[in-house]
Amino acid sequence: MTEQLVDVKALDAVLHRFSRVRRWEQYHSPKNLAMALTGEVSELVEIFQWLTEEQSRSVAKDPQTAQAVRDELADVLIYLVELAAALDVDLNEAVNAKLARNALKYPADPAA
Amino acid sequence: MTEQLVDVKALDAVLHRFSRVRRWEQYHSPKNLAMALTGEVSELVEIFQWLTEEQSRSVAKDPQTAQAVRDELADVLIYLVELAAALDVDLNEAVNAKLARNALKYPADPAA
Amino acid sequence: MTEQLVDVKALDAVLHRFSRVRRWEQYHSPKNLAMALTGEVSELVEIFQWLTEEQSRSVAKDPQTAQAVRDELADVLIYLVELAAALDVDLNEAVNAKLARNALKYPADPAA
Amino acid sequence: MTEQLVDVKALDAVLHRFSRVRRWEQYHSPKNLAMALTGEVSELVEIFQWLTEEQSRSVAKDPQTAQAVRDELADVLIYLVELAAALDVDLNEAVNAKLARNALKYPADPAA
Repeated sequence: MTEQLVDVKALDAVLHRFSRVRRWEQYHSPKNLAMALTGEVSELVEIFQWLTEEQSRSVAKDPQTAQAVRDELADVLIYLVELAAALDVDLNEAVNAKLARNALKYPADPAA
Repeated sequence: MTEQLVDVKALDAVLHRFSRVRRWEQYHSPKNLAMALTGEVSELVEIFQWLTEEQSRSVAKDPQTAQAVRDELADVLIYLVELAAALDVDLNEAVNAKLARNALKYPADPAA
Repeated sequence: MTEQLVDVKALDAVLHRFSRVRRWEQYHSPKNLAMALTGEVSELVEIFQWLTEEQSRSVAKDPQTAQAVRDELADVLIYLVELAAALDVDLNEAVNAKLARNALKYPADPAA
Repeated sequence: MTEQLVDVKALDAVLHRFSRVRRWEQYHSPKNLAMALTGEVSELVEIFQWLTEEQSRSVAKDPQTAQAVRDELADVLIYLVELAAALDVDLNEAVNAKLARNALKYPADPAA
């Protein structure tokens, strides 16, 4: 049974309109969107690369870094939703199916 | 004004419980999650790297590749939601703010 | 003045022949090679993602991980040399120029 | 038998001194260097993400893009050599071993 775990329909509609009125659809092949997604994730990684794990937990204390982190997370989500649309994938179904398999693959620690 | 464009609260709750009962929280620093996100995005990129853009548009025709694509998109979303949680970022607010700035930065094509 | 800091000519020749006799040249556009490079780097990142920095310094103690690390480093170098060739870039010149600018940009610590 | 395919010893020595006099060694764990490598590769990918494969073959025609490409290739090589040093891996040996296995794994096209 598929639970409603994520709902990105409204974002999907907004992005579709956004690309159409900018004539960007011609560039949005899955291949190109996957590359763009890589770029955005790497901008996230760059924020953390010279920090210790401990420091990485408190990046939000600096307002400028906190802003950068929010922007990069947003960009990753935006390209992810565009890529899923270009591939005609329902992200909610995909996540449900993946979690079901993860639950079998990684049993819970009985002591937790 | 913040619109409701994405809702990942249910997924966030499921992932939180999933990690807790597997004692994975200790590994889930933002630094580590950002690295894991990179890994998942690259598995997506690998699917497309030797395809032409045209071929990339029809990967879903092969059922095995379609399955791989769904799984990798799900994994990216899962780590993205975990990373946003670890950083205490509201993805819906972050996306709203980013889109507002993108709209100013990239004006629509008046002829579109 | 350009110093001889790296020499990849022999590798370049071997890779050129390797691709030719496998008819891979058609796939080796800079765009595709850049994607492939991403994939190889991510396989490196995956080795380290759940390790602490301290643990990452001693991955070579496990022979299987040491082998994986060597293989992934080799793959990154192979695609880097192929990409430089596809773009007609002399890596030794490029590195010399970059280091000269880095030296100006990041002054040495006088106490070091 | 190990052939001399790549020689990065002089670059390795220069980078070692460069980091030492800037007191950067503390940051150069394999984990961090792998992250930095990801970032540099993604800057390369960003150059190509919206280009067609055909366009990607001629990026060097624009002098500014050609410069960007040379810089990013240099950065990838720099971090790769630093990471290999941090892991005590001989890149020439690693490449020789990898190519030997690739030759067995991917037979040549007899018609080529």
